[in-house]
Amino acid sequence: MDAYNKRRKQMAESLNKQGLAMAMFEDTEGRRDPSIRYFSGQPGDALLFISASGRSLLVPWDVNMAQAMAKVEEMLPYGDFGRNPVMACAGALERFGLKSGLVDLPSITPYPMYIDYVEACPDHDFRCTTDGSSKTAETMRAVKDAEELAIYGKLSSITDDAMDAIESGIREGKFKTETDVALFIERYLREKGCESSGFDTIAAGPSRSFGIHAFPSYTAAHFATEGMSILDFGLVYKGYTSDVTMSFIKGRLSQKQQEMVELVRKAHNLAIKAIAPGVKSRDIALLVDNIFAEKGYVMPHGLGHGIGLEAHEAPAVRSREDNDWVLAPGHIITIEPGLYDPKEGGVRLEDDILVTENGYELLTHSRIVEF
Amino acid sequence: MDAYNKRRKQMAESLNKQGLAMAMFEDTEGRRDPSIRYFSGQPGDALLFISASGRSLLVPWDVNMAQAMAKVEEMLPYGDFGRNPVMACAGALERFGLKSGLVDLPSITPYPMYIDYVEACPDHDFRCTTDGSSKTAETMRAVKDAEELAIYGKLSSITDDAMDAIESGIREGKFKTETDVALFIERYLREKGCESSGFDTIAAGPSRSFGIHAFPSYTAAHFATEGMSILDFGLVYKGYTSDVTMSFIKGRLSQKQQEMVELVRKAHNLAIKAIAPGVKSRDIALLVDNIFAEKGYVMPHGLGHGIGLEAHEAPAVRSREDNDWVLAPGHIITIEPGLYDPKEGGVRLEDDILVTENGYELLTHSRIVEF
Repeated sequence: MDAYNKRRKQMAESLNKQGLAMAMFEDTEGRRDPSIRYFSGQPGDALLFISASGRSLLVPWDVNMAQAMAKVEEMLPYGDFGRNPVMACAGALERFGLKSGLVDLPSITPYPMYIDYVEACPDHDFRCTTDGSSKTAETMRAVKDAEELAIYGKLSSITDDAMDAIESGIREGKFKTETDVALFIERYLREKGCESSGFDTIAAGPSRSFGIHAFPSYTAAHFATEGMSILDFGLVYKGYTSDVTMSFIKGRLSQKQQEMVELVRKAHNLAIKAIAPGVKSRDIALLVDNIFAEKGYVMPHGLGHGIGLEAHEAPAVRSREDNDWVLAPGHIITIEPGLYDPKEGGVRLEDDILVTENGYELLTHSRIVEF
Repeated sequence: MDAYNKRRKQMAESLNKQGLAMAMFEDTEGRRDPSIRYFSGQPGDALLFISASGRSLLVPWDVNMAQAMAKVEEMLPYGDFGRNPVMACAGALERFGLKSGLVDLPSITPYPMYIDYVEACPDHDFRCTTDGSSKTAETMRAVKDAEELAIYGKLSSITDDAMDAIESGIREGKFKTETDVALFIERYLREKGCESSGFDTIAAGPSRSFGIHAFPSYTAAHFATEGMSILDFGLVYKGYTSDVTMSFIKGRLSQKQQEMVELVRKAHNLAIKAIAPGVKSRDIALLVDNIFAEKGYVMPHGLGHGIGLEAHEAPAVRSREDNDWVLAPGHIITIEPGLYDPKEGGVRLEDDILVTENGYELLTHSRIVEF
């Protein structure tokens, strides 16, 4: 059985346990959900219906692409349903022979659409909650299976090679501007067989590194000149993204800059060492908050996050009270402590880490380059 | 009064007419809404509340960025509300002194969140419909005002210059691969003061041009070699995107390829000539459908769409029955007829057009380059 089929069967079992007849997934402009790629291989713009009895139906916009990329038992073009998700849902229920029962909608279904589903299918009940099938898919996706771990093995190595090439290029003075280094990455990844970058590369030279997420993400401004520069990027291989941040520190640092660099290195090191199955990710984030607080610093963003088919996915790795994630083998998370000062600039260090049975495996090897 | 203030006042008037106390806008990961930039200048990650009495409150994630970019009377950091939209909504109602009344939520508010709002503010009524304030903002944004027309004047000229430079580069053999031409654009736009590309540039060489939206959007494959290649890109200037498609046809064409190129040119020409205020955009799309149908072709996508702060926004320009948009002065739309064949490849030609009082103004000057 292929990985997609295995995942769909697991979802069907979950539907059975919850007394649900069918779950619906939607991946469309404004409501992106790569769970459809996770369950079928189809990389975008489609609906997917999975029934408790284990049947599934993919409804893609672009049938040619789906025939090339998706692995599913049944497929019908979206045009057959007037390109309308409500009509497609009714059609899937009919095709599956489900005359009644509870249907689980994506948790991001807009309120007005929810009403449309209810009105269009009066014989069925609809559920739309934050702990439904969307959450089941999120939880499944958080624990990477054998196929995904193989992808991350290859992807991490490409990402590490990219960082080595970038460090060399910076030291040799090959990259003058934020654009130079960002476009080097775009070219590099495609030559290595990656699909795209995982998000807009953030290349922030000393004049812009004070921002958490510099806007625009990269410009014609100088990069890696005197001061502190941040480079945050991810590469996508077979749908999965890496996410690393390097910092480049050039010239003599102020005392405060030195302190910031040391604190970020220390936080990065101690946070990674704290990773193990059974550990609450919130506790690791609190550990870093404390390291910074002791010296009077506050980190204006979360410590990390899961990665996978999305750049931000489960498990959460932050100190907010609503984070109740417990790390488990197969989780792949980032650890990205950073400190920012409107005058001194910013420094961040981010790596991708796999939680293992006994602890952790460092997938990438980022660095703060001082030169 | 600055443009943002004027737009907020117009929204407040609309709230008054509809008997609404307050409207809420949200721009967050997974629920992007550049209406916040339209009403305040803040380029992302914020909530915006506008009351019928004309008050407004911006709640940004990144206060430093908002202080640099937003023009609003009142601003409070999202942290003040525990980074929770429901708490921020309750806080805005309190700050505006609104003890009761009807609150309009974004039309894409997920069903479970709608329930949270209702439960958190029992003294208020909540509305979430497809024809509420989100629609009002969409309709306002469809008609570009003086500030926006000035931006498009500059942006169209940069886009035209980029196309000239690309055509020269192709003719001179400077671009060998899809990546070469896509990264040329990324560099060019930043040198000209643009923020970013408006969407992932699609550079599809002869081996991949049969797809409507090639996946991945550009690769290390050859571009503009023997056969038909498509280049679809947009540049973002001060938040607004252009959207053009060039095609490159190299070598001797098959009879079918020749017919496809001629049909696309004819459709592009006649569709643009049909643009005028008072014309239903659906009728223009039907005109093109007919041109193609006469020769036995079907276009697998809509004829065009509005552009602005988003690459796809109102007005719609397609032949689907639910399109009831009537063109009006100030609308900026794309016209992008295209034909695709799994064996012969694809050809598409797209320009940006402003609807004027008397007809139209062609903003960009794309082309099918035969060489």
